[in-house]
Amino acid sequence: MQMVEMIRKKRDGREHTPEELAWLVQGITGGRLPDYQVAAWCMAVYFQGMSPREARSLTLEMAASGEQLDLSALPQPVIDKHSSGGVGDKTSLVLAPLIAAAGVPVCKMSGRGLGHTGGTIDKLESIPGFQVELSREKFIRQAQAIGVALTAQSEELCPADKILYALRDATGTVESIPLIAASIMSKKLAGGAGGFVLDVKVGNGAFMKDLEEAKTLAQLMVAIGKGAGKKTVAVLTNMDQPLGRAAGNALEVREAIAFLRGEAAPDLLEVTLALGAQMLKLAGAVAGMEEGREKLNGLLYSGRGLEVFAKWVAAQGGDPRVVERPEMLPGAPVVRPVLSPGGGFVARMATDLLGRVVANLGAGRKEKEDIIDPVVGLVFHKKPGESVAPGEPLAEVHARTEEQAAEAGRAVLQAIKVTPEPSFPQPLIYGYIV
Amino acid sequence: MQMVEMIRKKRDGREHTPEELAWLVQGITGGRLPDYQVAAWCMAVYFQGMSPREARSLTLEMAASGEQLDLSALPQPVIDKHSSGGVGDKTSLVLAPLIAAAGVPVCKMSGRGLGHTGGTIDKLESIPGFQVELSREKFIRQAQAIGVALTAQSEELCPADKILYALRDATGTVESIPLIAASIMSKKLAGGAGGFVLDVKVGNGAFMKDLEEAKTLAQLMVAIGKGAGKKTVAVLTNMDQPLGRAAGNALEVREAIAFLRGEAAPDLLEVTLALGAQMLKLAGAVAGMEEGREKLNGLLYSGRGLEVFAKWVAAQGGDPRVVERPEMLPGAPVVRPVLSPGGGFVARMATDLLGRVVANLGAGRKEKEDIIDPVVGLVFHKKPGESVAPGEPLAEVHARTEEQAAEAGRAVLQAIKVTPEPSFPQPLIYGYIV
Repeated sequence: MQMVEMIRKKRDGREHTPEELAWLVQGITGGRLPDYQVAAWCMAVYFQGMSPREARSLTLEMAASGEQLDLSALPQPVIDKHSSGGVGDKTSLVLAPLIAAAGVPVCKMSGRGLGHTGGTIDKLESIPGFQVELSREKFIRQAQAIGVALTAQSEELCPADKILYALRDATGTVESIPLIAASIMSKKLAGGAGGFVLDVKVGNGAFMKDLEEAKTLAQLMVAIGKGAGKKTVAVLTNMDQPLGRAAGNALEVREAIAFLRGEAAPDLLEVTLALGAQMLKLAGAVAGMEEGREKLNGLLYSGRGLEVFAKWVAAQGGDPRVVERPEMLPGAPVVRPVLSPGGGFVARMATDLLGRVVANLGAGRKEKEDIIDPVVGLVFHKKPGESVAPGEPLAEVHARTEEQAAEAGRAVLQAIKVTPEPSFPQPLIYGYIV
Repeated sequence: MQMVEMIRKKRDGREHTPEELAWLVQGITGGRLPDYQVAAWCMAVYFQGMSPREARSLTLEMAASGEQLDLSALPQPVIDKHSSGGVGDKTSLVLAPLIAAAGVPVCKMSGRGLGHTGGTIDKLESIPGFQVELSREKFIRQAQAIGVALTAQSEELCPADKILYALRDATGTVESIPLIAASIMSKKLAGGAGGFVLDVKVGNGAFMKDLEEAKTLAQLMVAIGKGAGKKTVAVLTNMDQPLGRAAGNALEVREAIAFLRGEAAPDLLEVTLALGAQMLKLAGAVAGMEEGREKLNGLLYSGRGLEVFAKWVAAQGGDPRVVERPEMLPGAPVVRPVLSPGGGFVARMATDLLGRVVANLGAGRKEKEDIIDPVVGLVFHKKPGESVAPGEPLAEVHARTEEQAAEAGRAVLQAIKVTPEPSFPQPLIYGYIV
């Protein structure tokens, strides 16, 4: 086969065979295909798309391009949750102990990634002593022992995706839906779980701004998961506002602990229960969503979730007393309120802008090599629909310096719109794709 | 500026500024842009196209990326003819001496290129002694002295086009109309002429199979030429049959000499006069097409064209006696007729297939490094509309070996369709774009 023929085929809107996609992925992984040809192919895919059959073949080949985790030593099926990323999304931090408390093992790899904050493992690292680099053996043993283990994503996972993603990032082809789906699902499949709950976020703080497009992506990922023989559902959730009340690394761990102590922000609670109930349902631990929600509520308010969280922290080298004394988490030297100039109701939060504020404070990575600042971020005192009096704090900036705090404060005021009348509340869950 | 922003802009169908295209071409020429980004951009152009303004900017920047010929020492304007290439196209060989005989200087660079035969300079090299590598000084002096000079295209001409073309060839983006137009016109503009007659061939033996698409290309090239301040016209000509009666290198020179001796195949004569009359009109040497045709006819039948051809051959080191004794041209060791199995009228010639036969005999280049065989090729005894008796020769194969001749003969019979009734003749000239 010739790569130029592959490019022409896709350019002209024809369908690749599974053999062609296997050849492509092996060529990428083996460094045998010139990157200019792969780049042209990616752009052709951007314009012509891929059939679900093509997307599944591509995904399976990418998943097979490197290490594939073996979770067969754990009670089956292991259910993995994936989120497409949004501001203040700490559902993984609270779901892991709750799902484990429900008797379903949580055993996952997690990437560091780029974004306004770090990934789940970056957040956990803000707990003094917490280790995120576990050997394969310890990783599995810990999940067997306490039901939950989380480790940094192996460098050996999906090398084809690493190469392809870097190329897409440099060639304006990140936005191709089938390439997004293949990138996400190949890593999920290589992670070894038997089922997946995919949280696809939609809104001004998400990668997907448009509900229809998000639905298309969710449907394709579900088709790929099922095509690979895995139980897969997607939940379309609202990202027109930050999830919960904190965005930042240590700040989100603090919110997660408060959540597990029963002090949950309503929106975070609703999304967490929806995702968690789906996980329990896929695992066969409950018969339906209602039973799942009730079970998780019970584990939350009985303190069982917090107990497992403490065990988890201890198992990975952290100090479990942090669940009683969250002030053990590192704090920012400068904490300043952002006061509302007028009164009324919070109508709209420009979530993408708030994400950029958090990133500019130093909480995230723009380049792979950037170092994350665990202490900085934002706390939102008011969320859409809530009333605010003139001079009352809308939010709180956690910063390294006064200058950074002032700059962030000005940006937060730009991002949060207060109106005289309350606006119609938006749904938090747009729907399920099963 | 960032290249990924350029790619996204084109991907989303937005228009590049002249400054952006200048930056792009300078980056390509200077080797500063990674080829994977340029490849992705080419594919985005393939799908989104370019405005005439963009195509003109790209062309001008490409023309300025290397050497630009200075023809100001010659009587102005110098008019250059370009052909998009077809089987048996030897119009440059006969137009150069005829136009020079009309007092309009011909002074052009010519590429070797890939194809079923070589380019014009490859054909001329089949004349014993003919030199195609002239110094700039000798090139201009010869054009001043005898009115005609032709030299191999400088390696310094349009380096941006060289890099871009190689990348397009490897990434399935050769077929983009604005990129084709920019590639052709940048080399034309760098060649220094003051006006251009563009012969855009359409049909089963041409790159452009479809009249509408050919028209689009022709219109864009004319717009680019005019936008660069040059007189430019395009002629859309028929390539559903070979032009004239020979295809091959020495064989075409032989036909060109016969033409200049007054033995012109009717189709070659009509196309040559149309192109030549346009050249004389652009040069201001005649008032209109009719006067141009008459003038060229006079120069042809008086033998003035042949005289200039002989002087031209002599000036570039060849033996001018070749015009009296064409048997001085190298000949093929094996010459075999292709006999018509049945009788009737030639209805259709699969010109692309005939071009491949000529290429397979060794007349052309598939790769830049291939060596051309000057002696091989095909002579067509019958053209569409002509009657043929059973057992009469349809064509003649000129080959190196009996095996090659037999294989070519079988293919020629596949390519030429004979029917009981004569078919309706096709126009040779589809139209002019001025």
